[in-house]
Amino acid sequence: MPIRGSDRTSNRRAGGSPQRRLGARKRNQESLSGDPESCSPSDPRQVFTRRYRASIRTGQEPPSQRCSKAIHQGFELEVQLYPLKSQLVLPGDSLTARFIDALSAARLSARNGDIIAVASKVVSLSEGNIVSLRKVRTTALARKLGRKFEMLPEFAQVVLNEADAVYGGVPGVLLTLKNGNAIANSGVDRKNALGDSVIPWPADSHRSAERIRRALNRKFRKRIGVVIVDSRVTPLRLGTTGLAIACSGFKPVRDSRGIKDLYGRKVQITLHSLADGIAGAAQLLMGETQETIPFVLVRGAPVQLGGSYSSNSMTLPVKDCLYMSQMPSPSIMERDHG
Amino acid sequence: MPIRGSDRTSNRRAGGSPQRRLGARKRNQESLSGDPESCSPSDPRQVFTRRYRASIRTGQEPPSQRCSKAIHQGFELEVQLYPLKSQLVLPGDSLTARFIDALSAARLSARNGDIIAVASKVVSLSEGNIVSLRKVRTTALARKLGRKFEMLPEFAQVVLNEADAVYGGVPGVLLTLKNGNAIANSGVDRKNALGDSVIPWPADSHRSAERIRRALNRKFRKRIGVVIVDSRVTPLRLGTTGLAIACSGFKPVRDSRGIKDLYGRKVQITLHSLADGIAGAAQLLMGETQETIPFVLVRGAPVQLGGSYSSNSMTLPVKDCLYMSQMPSPSIMERDHG
Repeated sequence: MPIRGSDRTSNRRAGGSPQRRLGARKRNQESLSGDPESCSPSDPRQVFTRRYRASIRTGQEPPSQRCSKAIHQGFELEVQLYPLKSQLVLPGDSLTARFIDALSAARLSARNGDIIAVASKVVSLSEGNIVSLRKVRTTALARKLGRKFEMLPEFAQVVLNEADAVYGGVPGVLLTLKNGNAIANSGVDRKNALGDSVIPWPADSHRSAERIRRALNRKFRKRIGVVIVDSRVTPLRLGTTGLAIACSGFKPVRDSRGIKDLYGRKVQITLHSLADGIAGAAQLLMGETQETIPFVLVRGAPVQLGGSYSSNSMTLPVKDCLYMSQMPSPSIMERDHG
Repeated sequence: MPIRGSDRTSNRRAGGSPQRRLGARKRNQESLSGDPESCSPSDPRQVFTRRYRASIRTGQEPPSQRCSKAIHQGFELEVQLYPLKSQLVLPGDSLTARFIDALSAARLSARNGDIIAVASKVVSLSEGNIVSLRKVRTTALARKLGRKFEMLPEFAQVVLNEADAVYGGVPGVLLTLKNGNAIANSGVDRKNALGDSVIPWPADSHRSAERIRRALNRKFRKRIGVVIVDSRVTPLRLGTTGLAIACSGFKPVRDSRGIKDLYGRKVQITLHSLADGIAGAAQLLMGETQETIPFVLVRGAPVQLGGSYSSNSMTLPVKDCLYMSQMPSPSIMERDHG
């Protein structure tokens, strides 16, 4: 019986007449929907797959890695990342419509458990959250920061307006606090914005993620998760990776407290940022420059669907952060310039 | 003609008699190997796919995103992540043998362009790089740090021995500089080590990555990349993500200097850490606790294969780092305790 994960190498690309293919697809749908008649109940791979898929449908924890012999046979479920090209997203465009077009152009359809990674830039663009630098009036503070860090004073002003606090900077970039994140230039981006415009993060990323997820769930009648992704730098690393600035429809952090390690000892660092892992994987495929890949479909990610998690369930207080707790307090707080 | 990316949804799971499947596979191999007879030279998707694959084989830059009409049709190549279970890796075990077993148990084979993500812990284990806390003699400095940061003095001593510098800490964790990285506890791990042992990073991660890559290339006769992955925390984020502590066989950072954005302006932040993106994707599937998934096969990642890149081609000097440049100088340098 062809089922995901079994006999991968020989079945994957096999063709067949249209009738054959439809027949095979129908059989697959039966087995994937967990029909107990359609697969042998004793095959540990199928048992595991069925429980795993059931856990996605019901929003329960996935089956224990120990529940099945399958894991001892080297079997695990794979993850697929589909980068989806889109037409340029313009202010006022429906992001849902753009996503549906991109998905259909890639000849894919949505499934239960899919996570849709969306570039923060296109969320802001579609919401019209764009700032024209020509219309920005600068304060003395912005002009001072501009001189000190070799930035356009108008750009420094937008960064200040968006920031909750400013820690300092290096040439061209301020280290700011924004929605609980320690991020370059408050997340304001000069790339891929028209003319003299810059693009801040969405005004309320969490609400945007919720809105996109609801629209997609309605459209596809599937349980889908959404993560809004921006590029960020991390300490001492050259180059950017992905950051989940908001997510909806899945639990962003896996908590292993109380779980013991392979030798039965209590595990100390117990939290695993699934949302950032998904964002990192998606950002690998989203372009930084000329490419227009605002969406990545992530299929098979090991997440727990459902529930409502606020974006600050992904962040730490400054005093508990290994990095930020070592810095002097921010030099500029919102009250100084707000 | 069945080819990757075309008619995905209907072909993917199609079965067929063994003869049919073999025939289909043979046809696919022909088209995948770029035989100009086997696919229409005018189909932009196939042209793009052929150029992309050729660029992987030859180690050249992938074809420009603009070279083909394919991108305007929503087509991009997908990435697959295959988590590979393994038996417990014990000191002295051959990591190559464990990987080959895990790959074969998952019924997969290696292909040109595959990147193998390996957990740093199993690299250290196989190299016997384990420290028994019972045999550690503590200095006054380690005992002081242990008291201040609520750590076992023996563990603090191992962290000190591994560190190039110590910036400070939060309860249970020191912020250290190690091989150019700002990392918790010098990367020393108490999880999944036997008895009272702890596991530092491999003694020379870059050399380990090189060695693993050469062994796998010899075994499979394919051009494969290797990345060694550890979990790390990042500023103000709850939970760990993946960090590439070393890589071999591909260019870890994509440099877009000189490239212009969609509106023709020069792009400012131009570096994209592909190695960390791959590590983040892989760590999503590697377990933190009971799971034993030390390998993830990453297929289709948009990297440039070949060349020799040292691990410090992935890091920044402290003075150029947005985060670390804001901190006071490290309180303890190697000379103080080395």
